[in-house]
Amino acid sequence: MANSTVNNGVNVDALLAAREALKQAPEAAKFTWRASCKWQNGTHSQTTIKGFHGLGADQQHKTETSFSADHPEIFASEDLGVTPVEYMLVGLASCLTAGVAAVAQNRGVQLRSVESRVEGTMDIQGILGMDSQVRNGYDDIKITFNIDADAPKKEIEAIVAQSQKRSAVYDIITNPTNVTVVVA
Amino acid sequence: MANSTVNNGVNVDALLAAREALKQAPEAAKFTWRASCKWQNGTHSQTTIKGFHGLGADQQHKTETSFSADHPEIFASEDLGVTPVEYMLVGLASCLTAGVAAVAQNRGVQLRSVESRVEGTMDIQGILGMDSQVRNGYDDIKITFNIDADAPKKEIEAIVAQSQKRSAVYDIITNPTNVTVVVA
Repeated sequence: MANSTVNNGVNVDALLAAREALKQAPEAAKFTWRASCKWQNGTHSQTTIKGFHGLGADQQHKTETSFSADHPEIFASEDLGVTPVEYMLVGLASCLTAGVAAVAQNRGVQLRSVESRVEGTMDIQGILGMDSQVRNGYDDIKITFNIDADAPKKEIEAIVAQSQKRSAVYDIITNPTNVTVVVA
Repeated sequence: MANSTVNNGVNVDALLAAREALKQAPEAAKFTWRASCKWQNGTHSQTTIKGFHGLGADQQHKTETSFSADHPEIFASEDLGVTPVEYMLVGLASCLTAGVAAVAQNRGVQLRSVESRVEGTMDIQGILGMDSQVRNGYDDIKITFNIDADAPKKEIEAIVAQSQKRSAVYDIITNPTNVTVVVA
């Protein structure tokens, strides 16, 4: 139940209305998210995001955003952007954080601050092809939330658990997702 | 075999030397990548990346980078950043692109341009909790490369395949990765 004195800046009523509307038009729930990447030099690339598809129509972000990725200097690269694997941590932390705000709003809990620290460990013997028993990706990711909110710790933990349960990025990372790579 | 007339800007010799050095010191291959996220308001957050750990020491990127994430206006949000799921596409495209440059360098293939378009499809009935049979994350991701290089298409395809085989992000997305969520 939304509590009208609580304001985390999430319009829960609009989300609940959208859910009702999509019940009548499930095709509109099919989204396509897109990005375009352009190699610059070495391991440096630039990826641009502007449009996506959803609610049965092509949509646009208010602004086009471009992201630099690179490898760090200790890999003999120029460090002109964060690494691709760090973008995964950005996605995970931001997804769970948005969920915490939305769930807290829906449960009538006023948030004062939500901070998190995410760490992913990786043995680079994988990506360097040194040991076929070592995976390329993260062997483990841990995210720790520090939340100041108008609720006991048990309720805060339940909010975080619900955010995790509905998180798109948490699902993408923890479960297998099909990726097809094509050369045009 | 590296071909000295080919220059994709990747220092393959340094990478091969690093691989040799790590054989003697496998502990140095253990990396930790980190990000800190701070909720702003609504679904808007800011994630900052600066330091990481690897080669047995704490390391720093040349610059600290901060990333805004938000939900779009059609979700009743303010669209003050790209969505968390779009960050996953940034990571995937940039990881495979860096790999293409490195593998091409190692195989003596001069690249002229590498562009890719990545699309992820998702049924938002999952994240809205409308249908427990629908997953929260992407049901499918496809990345299409357009590569102009000094090599026949078969060789270009083999370079992309090798990049995919050694890609950390491709591994993270296609295989299950453990994520622990903790409230401090």
